[in-house]
Amino acid sequence: MNRAYNFGAGPAMLPDVVLQQAQEEMLDWHGTGMSVVEVSHRSAAFMELVKKAEQDFRELLSVPDNYKVLFLSGPTRAQFALIPQNLIGKKSSADYIQTGIWSEMAAIEGQKYLTANVIASTKDDAYTTVPQASELNINPDAAFCHYTSNETVNGVEFPYIPDSGDVPLVVDMTSSILSRPVDVSRYGIIYAGAQKNIAPAGLVILIVREDLFDRASAQTPTFGDFAVQLKNESLYYTPSSFSIYIAGLVFQWLKASGGLSAMADINQRKAKKLYDFIDQHDFYQNPVEKSARSLMNVPFTLADDQLDATFVKQADAANLKALKGHRFVGGMRASIYNAMPEAGVDALISFMQDFAAQHG
Amino acid sequence: MNRAYNFGAGPAMLPDVVLQQAQEEMLDWHGTGMSVVEVSHRSAAFMELVKKAEQDFRELLSVPDNYKVLFLSGPTRAQFALIPQNLIGKKSSADYIQTGIWSEMAAIEGQKYLTANVIASTKDDAYTTVPQASELNINPDAAFCHYTSNETVNGVEFPYIPDSGDVPLVVDMTSSILSRPVDVSRYGIIYAGAQKNIAPAGLVILIVREDLFDRASAQTPTFGDFAVQLKNESLYYTPSSFSIYIAGLVFQWLKASGGLSAMADINQRKAKKLYDFIDQHDFYQNPVEKSARSLMNVPFTLADDQLDATFVKQADAANLKALKGHRFVGGMRASIYNAMPEAGVDALISFMQDFAAQHG
Repeated sequence: MNRAYNFGAGPAMLPDVVLQQAQEEMLDWHGTGMSVVEVSHRSAAFMELVKKAEQDFRELLSVPDNYKVLFLSGPTRAQFALIPQNLIGKKSSADYIQTGIWSEMAAIEGQKYLTANVIASTKDDAYTTVPQASELNINPDAAFCHYTSNETVNGVEFPYIPDSGDVPLVVDMTSSILSRPVDVSRYGIIYAGAQKNIAPAGLVILIVREDLFDRASAQTPTFGDFAVQLKNESLYYTPSSFSIYIAGLVFQWLKASGGLSAMADINQRKAKKLYDFIDQHDFYQNPVEKSARSLMNVPFTLADDQLDATFVKQADAANLKALKGHRFVGGMRASIYNAMPEAGVDALISFMQDFAAQHG
Repeated sequence: MNRAYNFGAGPAMLPDVVLQQAQEEMLDWHGTGMSVVEVSHRSAAFMELVKKAEQDFRELLSVPDNYKVLFLSGPTRAQFALIPQNLIGKKSSADYIQTGIWSEMAAIEGQKYLTANVIASTKDDAYTTVPQASELNINPDAAFCHYTSNETVNGVEFPYIPDSGDVPLVVDMTSSILSRPVDVSRYGIIYAGAQKNIAPAGLVILIVREDLFDRASAQTPTFGDFAVQLKNESLYYTPSSFSIYIAGLVFQWLKASGGLSAMADINQRKAKKLYDFIDQHDFYQNPVEKSARSLMNVPFTLADDQLDATFVKQADAANLKALKGHRFVGGMRASIYNAMPEAGVDALISFMQDFAAQHG
């Protein structure tokens, strides 16, 4: 077996050791004679798994005691509808910062449930940067202020945490969570889909400040009511057990790898190598302002886009998979999440060097 | 390895051959060098997987051409909120038939979005039967009529399909789907969570008549809008890929096992054995009216409920797992879905015989 270097943006690469353990236990989890996906979510063994996963997650991110962690099932973008419904309380509007297609979609969906005010947008810059901190005028009466820390498609990442004062700051951290330490106390809600840096798709993890469970609208669906999930310890409904199980294994792998400080070092090194290479070669371009470049998703274009298909095909043959850029942006994109080894980035750079020499 | 007979109601037992294939392919799916959960949902290979799963599912259930099949992510009970929002159109109410705790919860949730009229209920019979077909007075102006074909907790199953006239009939078939052939043409929507008879939790499959995609309310969340999912061929968002993958393998297993007619024969034989045994032994009781007994979930009580814990413990030691009844009902429950081999039912009966002899 030849494991690929998978640069896909999500579903994304998982650590080999995690998949190996899942493989070994597939028909007999912890001597139960059952797969972990066959076990009742209300069994003591599975509830212990969820508890341990939460503990490890809290430890990795140093989640303060006044924050609750929820494991939810379903698509990440369900939160674009559920967060406004959970947070609206007696307010009527929320503020949105637009820095890419995901934060744009969050605001469009939010508009169904409240007045979604776009208080800053880099759309006119083709989403190649983020607003200055000083440009953000957050309405003190907003139910919350929403932003996307890392735009997976556009490869843009906030180098700072917006200051929203007393307005709860809500962040979609799907594609950067666990890539480095985060000051959780700055946020009202952190949410993240699992399929980039955590686990197979189907799971969304929320970190919610404990004072924010009291303001859901009457029409909030029960399955998406954060207070209901909290009361039921994330087991109100049958959860996506395979995703939670793999998440737990990934958290253990991260802890064994030195935690988030160690990951931040590796991730910065990986990204720097790739950006430096791109910047030093005229054949490749990254359009994003340097201060706002993503550590996780590196979009780049070739000098001649007629070569795109050839690049993708030859890279694939060289075991460098899923480099085709998002259909909204074009070009290439290398997603280099935690599970991408540094050797994978080295292999990509080496391939890019050869390709440029051949076609440049 | 000693595979257990898992009588859990869901997450439930899966066929050994399916788990074995998942195990073999865990780090390298179809020679990609990637796990199936690492592959992009927009890759040709994964889209082919979804298409094949849908084809096999349609074939198994003989789904007519004027019905669409949707694979959705998230908890089944999200549909309690989403179906009313998708079907309300210009109507203001829907009818609900209550035959157990699941159909009861569906009506309570529906009330958030429309007037949920409970037109028949067997709650006064402690949910041990279903209404007579002649008792059902469905309001011709209802947006839909909802019922639950098989009540997982109460072990009650409809022996007939209600006649709702021109009102779209909506059925929660979570715990009986694929257990036997079904006349799909009688329904507006059939929906089923995967975690009983299909796949690991996190997936809900819908069969929707094609004229019903035009009536979602403006506040329907985009992720839950059936028309959006249809347009995007079930890939509007990153799906629960592991569940869809396993579902595809289960469909292939069902086809190789002779399809749903063959499953119906086996399921009837398994259930008959168990009910006959219970009826013939005073030590065991099943409270459900004979004509409404579930083929999938067999609740039973012991003559002395002080022995419940001993029964569960000894059964567990005999490799007969998860027999404890639902906390709302008490006693025991043996869920005997498609993946439960007949030998498992035989082993359970043999154990019950010994236990009764010892304690009766």
